[in-house]
Amino acid sequence: MKTEGGSTAAKRRAGERAAEAVEDGFVVGLGTGSTTAHAIRAIGRAVDDGLAVRGIPTSFQSRQLALEVGIPLTDLDAVDGVDLAIDGADQVVDGETGAHGALIKGGGAAHAREKLVDTAADRFVVVADPSKLTDRLERPVPVEVLPDAHTVTADRIEELGGDPTLRDAERKDGPVVTDNGNLVLDCAFGPIDDPDELATRLSRLPGVVEHGLFVGVADATYVGTDDGVEVRRY
Amino acid sequence: MKTEGGSTAAKRRAGERAAEAVEDGFVVGLGTGSTTAHAIRAIGRAVDDGLAVRGIPTSFQSRQLALEVGIPLTDLDAVDGVDLAIDGADQVVDGETGAHGALIKGGGAAHAREKLVDTAADRFVVVADPSKLTDRLERPVPVEVLPDAHTVTADRIEELGGDPTLRDAERKDGPVVTDNGNLVLDCAFGPIDDPDELATRLSRLPGVVEHGLFVGVADATYVGTDDGVEVRRY
Repeated sequence: MKTEGGSTAAKRRAGERAAEAVEDGFVVGLGTGSTTAHAIRAIGRAVDDGLAVRGIPTSFQSRQLALEVGIPLTDLDAVDGVDLAIDGADQVVDGETGAHGALIKGGGAAHAREKLVDTAADRFVVVADPSKLTDRLERPVPVEVLPDAHTVTADRIEELGGDPTLRDAERKDGPVVTDNGNLVLDCAFGPIDDPDELATRLSRLPGVVEHGLFVGVADATYVGTDDGVEVRRY
Repeated sequence: MKTEGGSTAAKRRAGERAAEAVEDGFVVGLGTGSTTAHAIRAIGRAVDDGLAVRGIPTSFQSRQLALEVGIPLTDLDAVDGVDLAIDGADQVVDGETGAHGALIKGGGAAHAREKLVDTAADRFVVVADPSKLTDRLERPVPVEVLPDAHTVTADRIEELGGDPTLRDAERKDGPVVTDNGNLVLDCAFGPIDDPDELATRLSRLPGVVEHGLFVGVADATYVGTDDGVEVRRY
């Protein structure tokens, strides 16, 4: 069975291997998406077996799943730190470039809170299947913008060489509204040679709440394959 | 009569002079604060006298005042561009440094939308009284953050050398909540030698929606004095 380009078995292997890195007493960032969901379920089973952890969800979706599988939850402002974050990615640079381990996230429109939790963690592990690996980032970069900003910020993104599209909702008329009450521009830049420089340019644009380029944030990627898990460390 | 460090007469002179720059047919960004309020009232009188303008408010407050004085309103996504923005500042660099015309804004917690409108304008005129002028920016920089982010982002701001304080509300328990539903950290950095570099660092922090450093945005400052208006052009 294929979903979103990767096999369920590969995603499950990656997620479950990442869950094994969770130690007793950890505060764990719980990412969003189908691969991370396997990690959250595995952590829930470990909690059933007596593991003491507290989870910090990165989205409404991961919060619901964590509640469902019985992971005690806490908040970023209630802890001294986050020991480990586990999260997925839309695309991961896996090659001999300076951007090794750079990510595009935000397909689920949760990247603002994901970046907050993932960067707050002592260790951030990406879980992925091989379909997410790439030599160069080239998928559209999701950019969360203040609602009033969408046209003006779209103009500025065009000046940076991007082609922004306001993300339309399904099962709701009009645009996707994020968990923070904002809008999302999916910005096609073609192949991105210098993700760090583009990240800075996007961050500086007025109206931008957060963009989906994660550069220098991941510590490792666990890539689930048909017969195991390959680990990349950065 | 003194309010917020500048005389009402000086503020009125600056605001009214800026309003004279509004031409027939203009789309005008309407800033927030006591000095800009004089400009908005003057534009309202010009509208009464037949001037055709449309205003784009930068805050709930400026919207209310514009409605009160009869300025027809529009939105950023309904116009092709903004001809002129008029806005106040908490501090303006006025000296022979590379940061000439750099601003700190956000005392009124409206700086995210202010930056959006002010940067969208073909011309941005700051209105101020002499108490706002400084050799180097040194007031705390207001930083709007996602509600979940306030402790984590405060830690990162300390790493940048800042001393962040969550802005408490009055006439409401707990913190100030912005018009965008976020919180404000007032971040004391002492004298800021390189506002542009600090602006980039703050923009890149996860959880930061917008900060109050406006560098390279203003085209002029109209400084109201006891007997006239001094104009600085950048």
